[in-house]
Amino acid sequence: MGTSPQPEQPLATRRDRDRIRGVMAPVLTPFRSDLSPDAPRLARHCRWLLSQGCAGLAVFGTTSEANSLSVEERESLLEHLVGEGIDPATLLPGTGCSALPDTVRLTRAAVHAGCAGVLMLPPFYYKAVSDEGLFRVFAEVIERVGDARLRVYLYHIPPVSQVGLSANLVARLLAAYPRAIAGMKDSSGDWNNTKAMLDAFAARGFDVFAGSERFLLANLRGGGAGCITATANVNAAAITAVFEQWRTPAADELQQKLNDVRDAVEKYPAVAALKAIVAHYSGDPAWRTVRPPLTELPPAATASLVAELRTCGFGMAFDEG
Amino acid sequence: MGTSPQPEQPLATRRDRDRIRGVMAPVLTPFRSDLSPDAPRLARHCRWLLSQGCAGLAVFGTTSEANSLSVEERESLLEHLVGEGIDPATLLPGTGCSALPDTVRLTRAAVHAGCAGVLMLPPFYYKAVSDEGLFRVFAEVIERVGDARLRVYLYHIPPVSQVGLSANLVARLLAAYPRAIAGMKDSSGDWNNTKAMLDAFAARGFDVFAGSERFLLANLRGGGAGCITATANVNAAAITAVFEQWRTPAADELQQKLNDVRDAVEKYPAVAALKAIVAHYSGDPAWRTVRPPLTELPPAATASLVAELRTCGFGMAFDEG
Repeated sequence: MGTSPQPEQPLATRRDRDRIRGVMAPVLTPFRSDLSPDAPRLARHCRWLLSQGCAGLAVFGTTSEANSLSVEERESLLEHLVGEGIDPATLLPGTGCSALPDTVRLTRAAVHAGCAGVLMLPPFYYKAVSDEGLFRVFAEVIERVGDARLRVYLYHIPPVSQVGLSANLVARLLAAYPRAIAGMKDSSGDWNNTKAMLDAFAARGFDVFAGSERFLLANLRGGGAGCITATANVNAAAITAVFEQWRTPAADELQQKLNDVRDAVEKYPAVAALKAIVAHYSGDPAWRTVRPPLTELPPAATASLVAELRTCGFGMAFDEG
Repeated sequence: MGTSPQPEQPLATRRDRDRIRGVMAPVLTPFRSDLSPDAPRLARHCRWLLSQGCAGLAVFGTTSEANSLSVEERESLLEHLVGEGIDPATLLPGTGCSALPDTVRLTRAAVHAGCAGVLMLPPFYYKAVSDEGLFRVFAEVIERVGDARLRVYLYHIPPVSQVGLSANLVARLLAAYPRAIAGMKDSSGDWNNTKAMLDAFAARGFDVFAGSERFLLANLRGGGAGCITATANVNAAAITAVFEQWRTPAADELQQKLNDVRDAVEKYPAVAALKAIVAHYSGDPAWRTVRPPLTELPPAATASLVAELRTCGFGMAFDEG
């Protein structure tokens, strides 16, 4: 795959195309000790991620503990970010909830705020639902929001949601809403699935983002648009380097370094581990706080994780001002 | 099991004890053609279920498509029911959401409305969470609601929620909140789990409700409090008969008739099938409507289901006035 000729494609930055491309972070949500979301700290982390090269901020993703936030909390945080000067063209908020009216409300708020798009989970309570049922959900949301600016990125993460998005469903949605359906985040962890999505839909302008930087290089070589990955919260500069240099001879080696860091982090529960890393490198222990049902990483595990990261040459230049 | 001696226990009706016992229906939520909840139709169905012998109404359960409703929709429906004269002492609304603030808000509303209790799902987005994380969720809700009237029935339904409630977790919760933690609905579909909960906790005043009438007789013989079952939406009188006659020689035969009806219904997706049955026997096709991601039962399947029910001698005396 690495040596096959690539179709000609302009080197993308986040401004030179209609749609967002590159590396996005599903931004960690900081909480205060009373478990309320800490909006100013979130805005600082967003600014830092953009300074590290992130093309976009997938706030309210799985790593953001978004499904532990109420609709009002998500709305309020989004307003705060935009009010604090975060460019909405960099924002790709998660808006998919179990309940259709919640998804409509959050999606509408994102469009009205001028966000680049939304990352939309399917409803995730009922299991073994049909493609027809899922089609109706996305169709209802698109119709009810009724705004030509809407760009929906489908969020496929069956290991967590337990409700996946099939190629048949994507084909139906693209046929019905070719402008609104903009792409997918594939967090299946299964490269074969990502490749199938690329092969079936990338040529039709469907932007496939890998859900892990482990597949970033392969995804770009296959015609994908980048990645939206939890570890971008702590390793954005290195991940962005692969995106920027993927056509150069250095790409495979840079990718391997990403994998080493990912290997270390993946030994621990993701959200707690990433918050522990931010807390450690920023010297700000408040970052460790997670909302139940998650639990924070214990000190001993944090020490092991930091030691493992050190052996990968990982150093988080953390300066959120 | 059927012939072993039973501990002496008063025959319970829903008024002669502090806590609710008997047969409860997770009440179907009717929707209008625009998919909005139909509050007057819901109130009529609630009244009919009580007239059929239901001790309680577990509104906003899985069968109620509660996780397809927004928090505001659940609040508004609860207010409507109480305003329409449904006795809140019969109500056991589902209040467990993915997000802690939503669960707190709905639980508080239920307590303030004077409900018999709440049926509480654990947060169901994150998987493989720890007992410690789940303990913190229930503890936070109980502490934040901070009302001595609160009665929590833990809702164990791993086939759908994918997040189960272990005996260790129940033991910790009972030790910390012996008054607030009132019981469990066990929808595991695994009698061994129900029996383990009965054996471990029933003597301590923990009321175990089977999540299916299939286990009603066994549950009562084991010291359980009744059942909360989807099919009570259409078969409440027969299920209540087992609850009322479980110590009589007729009990096993009555139980077998329940199983026959359950067997027929279980061949189809539960919510759509039950709504199709209500629509058929009430002559009100609007009842067929479900909210996406669920889909309504097709006419051919409805015809098969009705035919199978007829062979069980099932006749739904449906008169909601």
